[in-house]
Amino acid sequence: MFKKIKNIHNFQRINFKYILIKKYSQKVSKCYPKRIFSGIQPTGNLHLGNYLGAIQKWIQFQDNGENVIWSIVDMHAITLSHDPKELNDNIFKMTATLLACGIDPKKSILFQQSTVPMHTQLSWILGCLSTQARLARLPQYREKSQTLKVIPLSLYIYPVLQAADILLYKATHVPVGQDQVQHIQLAQELAIKFNKKFGDTFPVPHSLVNENASQRIKSLRDPLKKMSKSEKDSKSRLDLLDEPDVLLEKIKKAVTDCTSKVTYEPETRPGVSNLVIIHSMLSGKSEDQICSEVEELDTGKYKLMVADFIIEKLTPIRKEYSKLIKDPMYLEEILKNGTEKAIEIANDCWYDVRNKIGFENDILCINESVQNIVNKV
Amino acid sequence: MFKKIKNIHNFQRINFKYILIKKYSQKVSKCYPKRIFSGIQPTGNLHLGNYLGAIQKWIQFQDNGENVIWSIVDMHAITLSHDPKELNDNIFKMTATLLACGIDPKKSILFQQSTVPMHTQLSWILGCLSTQARLARLPQYREKSQTLKVIPLSLYIYPVLQAADILLYKATHVPVGQDQVQHIQLAQELAIKFNKKFGDTFPVPHSLVNENASQRIKSLRDPLKKMSKSEKDSKSRLDLLDEPDVLLEKIKKAVTDCTSKVTYEPETRPGVSNLVIIHSMLSGKSEDQICSEVEELDTGKYKLMVADFIIEKLTPIRKEYSKLIKDPMYLEEILKNGTEKAIEIANDCWYDVRNKIGFENDILCINESVQNIVNKV
Repeated sequence: MFKKIKNIHNFQRINFKYILIKKYSQKVSKCYPKRIFSGIQPTGNLHLGNYLGAIQKWIQFQDNGENVIWSIVDMHAITLSHDPKELNDNIFKMTATLLACGIDPKKSILFQQSTVPMHTQLSWILGCLSTQARLARLPQYREKSQTLKVIPLSLYIYPVLQAADILLYKATHVPVGQDQVQHIQLAQELAIKFNKKFGDTFPVPHSLVNENASQRIKSLRDPLKKMSKSEKDSKSRLDLLDEPDVLLEKIKKAVTDCTSKVTYEPETRPGVSNLVIIHSMLSGKSEDQICSEVEELDTGKYKLMVADFIIEKLTPIRKEYSKLIKDPMYLEEILKNGTEKAIEIANDCWYDVRNKIGFENDILCINESVQNIVNKV
Repeated sequence: MFKKIKNIHNFQRINFKYILIKKYSQKVSKCYPKRIFSGIQPTGNLHLGNYLGAIQKWIQFQDNGENVIWSIVDMHAITLSHDPKELNDNIFKMTATLLACGIDPKKSILFQQSTVPMHTQLSWILGCLSTQARLARLPQYREKSQTLKVIPLSLYIYPVLQAADILLYKATHVPVGQDQVQHIQLAQELAIKFNKKFGDTFPVPHSLVNENASQRIKSLRDPLKKMSKSEKDSKSRLDLLDEPDVLLEKIKKAVTDCTSKVTYEPETRPGVSNLVIIHSMLSGKSEDQICSEVEELDTGKYKLMVADFIIEKLTPIRKEYSKLIKDPMYLEEILKNGTEKAIEIANDCWYDVRNKIGFENDILCINESVQNIVNKV
């Protein structure tokens, strides 16, 4: 199928592939029940951009009764050099943060990636269907590898593990940032390749791009840049767990312009517009509605009002987090229960894949073996 | 350590590394008990070159009371395109063959790689410590990739899975062919890297090269070439499971020269010397001893004698194989028991690695989860 388009340059090729994927997935994915999967790396604190760009949406899916699975992807957190103690702390911190934000283990499956061994097993199978050239074309790899003297293998192959993360749960929808869409395309191609070669097994997953929500939240120090945890100046971002006085201070010092009126003009007045966007996304009101409600305030007073509103929204999260992080046993219990649920789904898929690939029907043999070990313990 | 030698060319670099590895492993591996690990791909029938080059040696290790683990590496068998039905048949055939040759499940651990999920999990960790450049330098990859238009990712990364296969069992010795020595060197480097970064965990494995035994067994049709299953003419090799009349026919038609005397002169008389080598390796007698014993025979008569001897040696293997292959339930049981034993060792190692890497001590959580699933089944 793809051979015909060999001489077209990359961009067209990807687009053409995309159309083929769309056609194929319309044909196939009808048979698969809707399931939403996404992953988050356990790396440090979340800021408001992360929350509004991803977590808030996850909670909406969950509360709308969707079938949802969220994974703390610790295997991805080690692709570049890492500190083991910090990683371990961050796994607990991320668990507590997600729960504090509203992830409800009764409605969502929340689990730690490395506790479900089928991720890397499926990743190996998908690696046998991937080509070196295809991975080398992925923009994230090309960007990141240019900044490194020595390129770890994992930086090159992690999109295959990502594909396995998704396909293992036969996920139909994957909420992601714009920068991950090309990786979801790889997962789509691998699903199609596997299905064609070994029989229909995986739905072709769709990416759900949150209309650039995280792109819209800008740095408080330079509103032309995205709010980012890689920015050195911590005053540039509002961390979810910042104390009220810290939030107030950061918002008071947010860069705006000399005009005192509060308007929503992201092109010409990015600073104050950024505050309006945050306000809008946290409240659910439109930017225009907010601007008309605060018509009588100048920027300085509006900052105090926005700060109050943000503090009001984030305080329950921070308080819940503080409670949860003191109870690692509870967090471990939550993750353990999540693993149980995830592994049950993953097991079904892996059993199916093993049979189709020719490894034979002996997944029970693993289970029994592990059971024996457990019995001995 | 390796930075200093950046400007030396590859060859010297590898040699220099090798010296460092040797020094390091002398320092470290004292603490690890001797354990021998090797893997074999489940691909079609074995020929006499495979038997004499690997399996015969495995059985010697086993019968000498060594701590030995042999894996049927099905995950490696799919790096290039494969047929699932054929692969599945081959897994059973290989199990039956190894047992028929003398692998004793009471003395050896014999298991199917894909039933122990920690292989790919450890492989991911080791992939994070590997570099793209290092893998691209491996000669097997360079050779094989030159013959392919599209290079599967797995062809590039399989040496990392091989390293995981070995390190997962903390193997100290790995019997391999000469062509695999560079892969064992990669495993050595990865063991050292992991140990330095996360604390002493793995012994540095040594390769045990069987003095080119498999290199010495030549094609019966062209004694300048190695006996190989990739050779089209099946008369070029003696398959372990060939019927006596087939063996006789192949040996009678073996290419020799016009001299009637039987001598061992591999350089000038490769054909007849090949038969002497086979005879020697199967009997344990030296080539010179054999030549003096058959002084009075011409090549034609010697062929009949060698054929008789080979048939005598291989008939019990073929008969045992025929019995075993009719009992897939028994073979499955053997593999299942092997998995149980292998997974117990692998589990200990993975538990250790998880802790050191920062994934935390939650391996029990997997076991309990899987136990729950088993209980439900």
